Amino acid sequence: MTVTLAIDCMGGDHGPKVTVPAALNFLRKDPDCSVILVGREDDVALHLGKARDEFGARLRIRHASETVDMTDPVATAMRLKKNSSMRVAVDLVKSGEAHGAVSAGNTGALMAISRFVLKTLPGIDRPAIATAMPNINGYTYVLDLGANVDCEPEHLLQFAVMGVQLVSALEHKERPSVGLLNIGEELIKGNDVVKRAGELLRDSGLNFYGNVEGDDIFEGTVDLVVCDGFVGNVTLKASEGLAHMVFDALKAEFTRNIFTKFSALMALRVLKSFKHRFDPRRYNGAGLLGLRGVVVKSHGSADAVGFFNALERAAEAARNRLPERIAERMARLPAASQNLAAVNQ
Amino acid sequence: MTVTLAIDCMGGDHGPKVTVPAALNFLRKDPDCSVILVGREDDVALHLGKARDEFGARLRIRHASETVDMTDPVATAMRLKKNSSMRVAVDLVKSGEAHGAVSAGNTGALMAISRFVLKTLPGIDRPAIATAMPNINGYTYVLDLGANVDCEPEHLLQFAVMGVQLVSALEHKERPSVGLLNIGEELIKGNDVVKRAGELLRDSGLNFYGNVEGDDIFEGTVDLVVCDGFVGNVTLKASEGLAHMVFDALKAEFTRNIFTKFSALMALRVLKSFKHRFDPRRYNGAGLLGLRGVVVKSHGSADAVGFFNALERAAEAARNRLPERIAERMARLPAASQNLAAVNQ
Repeated sequence: MTVTLAIDCMGGDHGPKVTVPAALNFLRKDPDCSVILVGREDDVALHLGKARDEFGARLRIRHASETVDMTDPVATAMRLKKNSSMRVAVDLVKSGEAHGAVSAGNTGALMAISRFVLKTLPGIDRPAIATAMPNINGYTYVLDLGANVDCEPEHLLQFAVMGVQLVSALEHKERPSVGLLNIGEELIKGNDVVKRAGELLRDSGLNFYGNVEGDDIFEGTVDLVVCDGFVGNVTLKASEGLAHMVFDALKAEFTRNIFTKFSALMALRVLKSFKHRFDPRRYNGAGLLGLRGVVVKSHGSADAVGFFNALERAAEAARNRLPERIAERMARLPAASQNLAAVNQ
Repeated sequence: MTVTLAIDCMGGDHGPKVTVPAALNFLRKDPDCSVILVGREDDVALHLGKARDEFGARLRIRHASETVDMTDPVATAMRLKKNSSMRVAVDLVKSGEAHGAVSAGNTGALMAISRFVLKTLPGIDRPAIATAMPNINGYTYVLDLGANVDCEPEHLLQFAVMGVQLVSALEHKERPSVGLLNIGEELIKGNDVVKRAGELLRDSGLNFYGNVEGDDIFEGTVDLVVCDGFVGNVTLKASEGLAHMVFDALKAEFTRNIFTKFSALMALRVLKSFKHRFDPRRYNGAGLLGLRGVVVKSHGSADAVGFFNALERAAEAARNRLPERIAERMARLPAASQNLAAVNQ
C-alpha cells in the first residue's frame, strides 16, 4: 500500500528547517510513500531547494497561510486559524488525500483540531496520546499522556484497546501484554477508578497482566502500560527530567578537570553507545489514538532525525490500518464495557 | 536537647544485621542521642556483641516478641501483633519514652499503627509520606508518596504545610518554596482537585511557586512538590526504575569487552563520584507526617549506611520539634482552608 502523509511543516521549535529535510529523507528511504508538505509555500520551497523536483508526484506542497504557535490557546488555533498548516494537514486526512498527518506543533491544539475534524471512532469516548518509553530490552508503550486528566474505568479500558492495536501495528506483536498502572500489585490497591478498570480489563479478552507499578515501565514487565492522562503526563515528564539530570551530571563529572577529561576520551565510545541506546529521537512520535484517521505528534524540539522517526511511525500506523483495527477490536469487547461509550454517542 | 529514638530492629529485608550496626554508628556520631532497640532480645543482643556496654544508659533494649512481616496485611499487623517490634517502637513515642521511631518494615502497617497509636495533629485529616529526591543542586522533597490515593484540595494544602515544616526542619530553610504537581504551568491546567488546591495554596501564606511539572522535581525548581499519593507513588517508583535501568546499562556498556573494561578502569573515579552523587542511601528515610510524634520509614532494602541516614533524619526532625511546628503552622492557615479538617474532627 502506498502511504501518503500530510506534514505540518511549520510546527515545532524549528519549523521547515527540520521538517522539510526529514520529509526528504523519508521519501528517499521509503519508496512506497508520498508526502504533502503543508505550510507557507515560499518557506517550504526555500528549504526544499533543488530537491523539489527529485520525487515527482510523490512530493506535493499545499499552501497554508497561517501557523499555530506553541503558545496559542486551543480556542485560537481552532476558531481563528482555519487555514493553519496544522489544520490543513488534518483536513487532508479527513478528505482522504492523506493517510496520516504528522505535526511537531502545539499538542493541545493538534488534539482539539484532530478530534473536531476527524471525530472519534465508534465506541471511543475520548482520544488519548500514546508514546514509547525505553526499557531494558526495548520499548514500553504508555498511554494516556495528558489528553484526559479525569478518567472513568471505561476510558482506561478503551485506552488499553487502542494501545494494544498501536503496539501490534508498530511492533508487530501478536497479543501485546497490558499492565494497569497502580501503586501496588495486589488487587485491593489503588483508587476506585483503577480497581474497577482492573475488573473491566480482566473481562476484556485482552492479554491483561494485572497491576504494574512505576518501575515496571522501565523494567519492560509489559508491552503496554495504561493510566489516566494526569499520572501519565507527570510520569513521562519526571522521567525526561531525571534522564536529563543524569546525563548532565555524567557530562559534568567527565569534564571536571584534565584527568577526568582524559578518562572521558578513553570512555567516549562507551558513552556514545550508551547515549545512543537512550536517544529520545529514536522513539519520537506520539500517536493520537481513537480518531478516524492517523495523527502523530512529534516532540516540539525534535531535530530532523527525530522528526523522520515520527514520519516512519505514522506511515507504519497507516499501512497497518490502525484506526480500523481499533474500531474492530472495540466492537468485540464484552457488552458491559461498552456502556459508557454507548451512552455518550 | 537529647533525642531518644525507638528503633524497630526487626523490620526491613535484613533486620538486626543492618539496624543494630546502624544504631551503634548513630550513637558514636551523635553523642547527644540515645536509642531504644526494639526487637527479640536475643537477636538484638547477638548483633550488639560487646558494644552492648559501650554506651551505658544511652543504649537500651526493649524486648518485643513479634515481628511484622513485609507481606502481613495491615489488619494482621494492627490487631494480631500487638507486641510486634514495630508496634512497641511506636508505643514508646506515644508514652514519651522516645522522641521518634524508625522502622524499615512494611509501610502500610507502619502508617496504620502510627496513626492508630499516635493520632493525627489538630487540623490534619490524613498523615502523608514525604521523602527527598535528588535534583541537580540538592534535594527536592515530595509528598504524598502513597498513603492517600484519593485527595481533596484541602488535603493537598495540608500536605504542603507538613512538607514545608519538614524541609524547614531538615534543611534549615526559612521559607521553602512549594510547587503543585500538575500537567502544565498555566492556572487552567489539571483536574478540579488540583485547580482548587492551587487556589487554597495561593491564599495560604506559604511560599507558593505555582504549578510545576514532573521534570521540575529533578530540576530543583522548588524545595517541595505536593501531589496526591497515587501520582507521587508512581512518580517515585518510575524514577527508581529509570535510575536502575540507566546504571545497569552504563555498567553493561563498560563491561562489554576488554577495551570497554579498560575504559571503565580509566573512568572508575569519575563513575564512582557520579554514583555517589545519586546514591539513594544518602537520602534514605521517609517522614510519616501529620502525626503527634516523629515516625521515619527507612527503605526496606537499606543497608547500615542507609539506615543510619534514616536515624539521623528522625533525630533532626525530633530535635526541631517537627510535629509541634506542623500544628503551629496549621493553626495559622486562613479559616476557609480549615473547613474540611474541622468537619472531620
